[in-house]
Amino acid sequence: MLSFVNDYSELCHPRVLARLAEDNFEPQSGYGTDAICAEATARIRAACGAPEAEVVYLSGGTQTNRIVCAALLRPWEGVLAAETGHVAVHEGGAIESSGHKVLTLPAHDGKLDPAEAAAYLEAFHADANRDHTVWPGLLYLSWPTELGTLYTKAELTALHALCQRYRMPLYLDGARLASGLASPACDLTLPELAALCDVFYLGGTKCGAMLGEALVFPRGGLPAHLVTMVKQQGGLLAKGRLLGAQFDALLRDGLYFELGRNAVDRAMELKQVFREKGYRFYLDSPTNQQFLILEDRLMEELAKFVAFSYWERYDETHSVVRFCTSWATTREQIEALRAALPEAG
Amino acid sequence: MLSFVNDYSELCHPRVLARLAEDNFEPQSGYGTDAICAEATARIRAACGAPEAEVVYLSGGTQTNRIVCAALLRPWEGVLAAETGHVAVHEGGAIESSGHKVLTLPAHDGKLDPAEAAAYLEAFHADANRDHTVWPGLLYLSWPTELGTLYTKAELTALHALCQRYRMPLYLDGARLASGLASPACDLTLPELAALCDVFYLGGTKCGAMLGEALVFPRGGLPAHLVTMVKQQGGLLAKGRLLGAQFDALLRDGLYFELGRNAVDRAMELKQVFREKGYRFYLDSPTNQQFLILEDRLMEELAKFVAFSYWERYDETHSVVRFCTSWATTREQIEALRAALPEAG
Amino acid sequence: MLSFVNDYSELCHPRVLARLAEDNFEPQSGYGTDAICAEATARIRAACGAPEAEVVYLSGGTQTNRIVCAALLRPWEGVLAAETGHVAVHEGGAIESSGHKVLTLPAHDGKLDPAEAAAYLEAFHADANRDHTVWPGLLYLSWPTELGTLYTKAELTALHALCQRYRMPLYLDGARLASGLASPACDLTLPELAALCDVFYLGGTKCGAMLGEALVFPRGGLPAHLVTMVKQQGGLLAKGRLLGAQFDALLRDGLYFELGRNAVDRAMELKQVFREKGYRFYLDSPTNQQFLILEDRLMEELAKFVAFSYWERYDETHSVVRFCTSWATTREQIEALRAALPEAG
Amino acid sequence: MLSFVNDYSELCHPRVLARLAEDNFEPQSGYGTDAICAEATARIRAACGAPEAEVVYLSGGTQTNRIVCAALLRPWEGVLAAETGHVAVHEGGAIESSGHKVLTLPAHDGKLDPAEAAAYLEAFHADANRDHTVWPGLLYLSWPTELGTLYTKAELTALHALCQRYRMPLYLDGARLASGLASPACDLTLPELAALCDVFYLGGTKCGAMLGEALVFPRGGLPAHLVTMVKQQGGLLAKGRLLGAQFDALLRDGLYFELGRNAVDRAMELKQVFREKGYRFYLDSPTNQQFLILEDRLMEELAKFVAFSYWERYDETHSVVRFCTSWATTREQIEALRAALPEAG
Repeated sequence: MLSFVNDYSELCHPRVLARLAEDNFEPQSGYGTDAICAEATARIRAACGAPEAEVVYLSGGTQTNRIVCAALLRPWEGVLAAETGHVAVHEGGAIESSGHKVLTLPAHDGKLDPAEAAAYLEAFHADANRDHTVWPGLLYLSWPTELGTLYTKAELTALHALCQRYRMPLYLDGARLASGLASPACDLTLPELAALCDVFYLGGTKCGAMLGEALVFPRGGLPAHLVTMVKQQGGLLAKGRLLGAQFDALLRDGLYFELGRNAVDRAMELKQVFREKGYRFYLDSPTNQQFLILEDRLMEELAKFVAFSYWERYDETHSVVRFCTSWATTREQIEALRAALPEAG
Repeated sequence: MLSFVNDYSELCHPRVLARLAEDNFEPQSGYGTDAICAEATARIRAACGAPEAEVVYLSGGTQTNRIVCAALLRPWEGVLAAETGHVAVHEGGAIESSGHKVLTLPAHDGKLDPAEAAAYLEAFHADANRDHTVWPGLLYLSWPTELGTLYTKAELTALHALCQRYRMPLYLDGARLASGLASPACDLTLPELAALCDVFYLGGTKCGAMLGEALVFPRGGLPAHLVTMVKQQGGLLAKGRLLGAQFDALLRDGLYFELGRNAVDRAMELKQVFREKGYRFYLDSPTNQQFLILEDRLMEELAKFVAFSYWERYDETHSVVRFCTSWATTREQIEALRAALPEAG
Repeated sequence: MLSFVNDYSELCHPRVLARLAEDNFEPQSGYGTDAICAEATARIRAACGAPEAEVVYLSGGTQTNRIVCAALLRPWEGVLAAETGHVAVHEGGAIESSGHKVLTLPAHDGKLDPAEAAAYLEAFHADANRDHTVWPGLLYLSWPTELGTLYTKAELTALHALCQRYRMPLYLDGARLASGLASPACDLTLPELAALCDVFYLGGTKCGAMLGEALVFPRGGLPAHLVTMVKQQGGLLAKGRLLGAQFDALLRDGLYFELGRNAVDRAMELKQVFREKGYRFYLDSPTNQQFLILEDRLMEELAKFVAFSYWERYDETHSVVRFCTSWATTREQIEALRAALPEAG
Repeated sequence: MLSFVNDYSELCHPRVLARLAEDNFEPQSGYGTDAICAEATARIRAACGAPEAEVVYLSGGTQTNRIVCAALLRPWEGVLAAETGHVAVHEGGAIESSGHKVLTLPAHDGKLDPAEAAAYLEAFHADANRDHTVWPGLLYLSWPTELGTLYTKAELTALHALCQRYRMPLYLDGARLASGLASPACDLTLPELAALCDVFYLGGTKCGAMLGEALVFPRGGLPAHLVTMVKQQGGLLAKGRLLGAQFDALLRDGLYFELGRNAVDRAMELKQVFREKGYRFYLDSPTNQQFLILEDRLMEELAKFVAFSYWERYDETHSVVRFCTSWATTREQIEALRAALPEAG
């Protein structure tokens, strides 16, 4: 059966596996202090145009989000996020379980609005009772968002300036960063993006790695004792090299960007297929996640030959569903979908 | 200067102090295991028509809310509350700091809507991804709410039934319970209210006590090891008797209800004063907190002769403010306000 | 029945109650920002010879210990304490429940040894694997200790110097500070003690107050946002004045020190009674807690006419028990004990 | 340079990598719900003689220990462990950071003594003040221990019975389980070991996998909502299959046991080399970690040609060091050590 269920169904790109095999028997020091991680870090610095960058390799997105919040927030602080942000809804309460509140702002197609964020922060700091409320201590953005949308360079610049004004770090969750960078709607480069963040991660898990996220502090300033906090949170791998090796493979010869491009190109083709057949989109996503509004009976019919994700109820008779492409999606799969897909009617 | 700033400006009713003095030198066992607490508990059982009730005495509202959530929620669970609920906004992140998320629903004049709560719970339990989200494990209601409003008997009954259906305890924050019970809008008795809750507290701090809240499990079922959790959370007083003694005084000869009546009667008179002078109300509160919309220049003028609380910005030129009466407010104070208050113009 | 069970059986000294009644109806601002707390703070500054001191009033010892650790420790840090320290054994896991480890050192009659502490810290900082272990971030001492003993001025000076060397605050738990200061074995003044601590508390609960501890930062340097953390931990009283008022009474005309003296004087008399009757002491305590080794049958006999605390098993046929005096203990009670006490035989 | 630094220097056994490559492009469902994990689980059930076993795959030892404690302990409970247990010393406070105390008992060559554990539990449950202390809620054993030693079948049986008596689950940390099972000192089979535990893990990271631990509940009874807790703690991998695939490879044709045998056989040869040259052992370890007492000057000399781990100071002039073999250690490496090693003198 055809599948557009998600972007983590296949294991990893063959060059990632090959890189792991390459020096399998070469002894390396543990916990990410090895030469392979150092090589990967050199490549990430180059790709980000950030020679001072410090990089920590972690296993997954929720782990990374949790550790960043635990490391950067003080006990009286929370993280500010769009109400659809991954930290706000889909991490089983990871942030709260480490003691911090997720403060939410309205989401507009998955994005928070810089003006609304500014108004919130101004009101907060003007509030005489702010000592009885949670202090916003970190801004969380996902790029692309959970709905596939992208902040523009202008929006990121505005949010960066806002964070500077309130001395609040800007953290960007790049679980699908490769897809964002390859999008036709993307108007910034990786170095430009890095320059606008205090910390962000290059997602591996959803961009062709087996597992792993590269957490980047582009201008240095790694929080004190971060390694102890990673250990404490259960995120420190004895063989940290296995994360470094994957990013080393992904950043070599531009593989990471190539895989992002494949995901987005296939997504644009898939979008075209649906458009041609008269389907209705939930929003206009320029990246590898596409959201459609399906009449429930049609949804059932499609489910017979193609796998996708149920997203949420739209109204009494319609649902929102997600079709997702990835580094592994092929043109053949898109063509097979085109062949099988009925007109929306 | 006149003051309607809050309901905890004075220390306590003289009969509370007298009760403390009454057996000052009589030795009692520690940590709430004493005879004075036992007396108070007997009075609370009687007042609630709940002979099986178990009662724990705590120091303040936030402490009580935090301990109830910590004791009743499992790590994967959060507490469901109106977005204006005290646990959601004014406790400095107390619930999150103990590891749990506050899940919020829209507030309508401070209350959540039973139908919206039902829709939320139905959708949650139908969600295939619910394993990646925080489970609603407890319903938090405040009565009166933070905006002075009251759930009706019908609403509480519907919410109670909903909680039963989803095996989720219903917890009622009664910081201002005396004021609620004395309200002309109140359509239930204390025993009826107790019967609709799994756990609730009779507020002392804002109802005439020096400090203290009586946490009541009306049908028993005190969580295992609650005393250790109270100790752990820093809420166990060596001289627990001092909380028991205050509730013993408050529940003796109906003092608690009398003090609630004074707060509400004065609030209704204050409301009448503002109404006569042409002021505009933010909402129609039937209890001891009254919310007004003031033109900013008028607000400044009033602030010269009467103290009140700034609540929030209403629009470019208006603010919402709160006037609060209490067990200690006198008719003379209301008359003094009437004399000084200009027409709203 | 005679009782030497603990030092919190009676409610409080009458002058404490009188102080509360004194301005019962005078409105005060909430949460410890009131004029009464300010008066108490002025008295504490004077008594400590610390004009820059900042003072926060809290409800109980475990709450204070928990909040100090939560406010001063970072996530990778723990608190260093003697293995018999209150934080290590009798707080139901309060410190761990807020995320921090209690690192323990051997106790010698309830005290840790400055040389052993120095050796531990030296070894810790020399350990190549220290990144995988909890960092000692705060030194906890109780004075008097849980066994009634006192650190000498020389010992405190050595521990203070050690803390300076490792940039680790020294925190002194003064739950029974009044008793320590009144002890014949005490060789320092309150200002000298204050100068050797980064933070400490003057215990109220066990020294004649109804409830309350005064947390003192003798040279200022209150941690940022401490009020929010106190709120979050459930320790912020709406009527903070009630704590201030008690300390105002205790510090007025030296009442605090007088009450400490009564506790110690009675303890020394009690010690003399036991000594005369041939009883065996578990250790030589110079404060208000006295520990005896009783043959089990004798313990049962004593329990018929006097209440005391079981401490721990000593050997197959003997137990350790505690007799405790307090601000409320009278000479008559000591004489009654003398009259009733059999020879140890 | 020769290296006996640890058992995680090389990446993984080639058959593990091959297994990952085998179905790299085959789509699988996420988060451990895939067919590959199911295959691995079938193999683990067979190897453990536990057809009802439930298995969860996690990334590392500290993560596993943290999640087991968080899932099995209630807020008032702690985990009981030997003072040298990994949870007690080398996890950066992971257990405390999730809110629980590690209660320690004396260690004897890395093991706790069943009789001492029984005495502790008896005393705890007899203590009238137990409500103010942390309740022992889980027994943690490592097998082999951090010092390479093994509990015998008789000892495990005694500890199992003790846990049954006090309704406290027995949890066994099998980070180096393969090495324990292959030891000449091992007197139980894997099914026997599984039958004596309530939960344990088969270590992968230190036994030939790239990363991963298989957490086994041998008689079922997976804690409710464990998947949400794993998500919340940052341990849920999107591509859970990658852990399953590794255990599938390790359990196929007995590879896991073969790798353990290699580690132990090489360790016994290494032990023989040291013995022949007159070296002094810190203790008699029957598994892949060997501990020696070296005169400091000799330690420096050895460090010129072989890498090993510094363990701790022994006395003024001696240190304890660890030599570790693994699945990847070769006979040639042992012979090279023999050739280079000077007599102890």
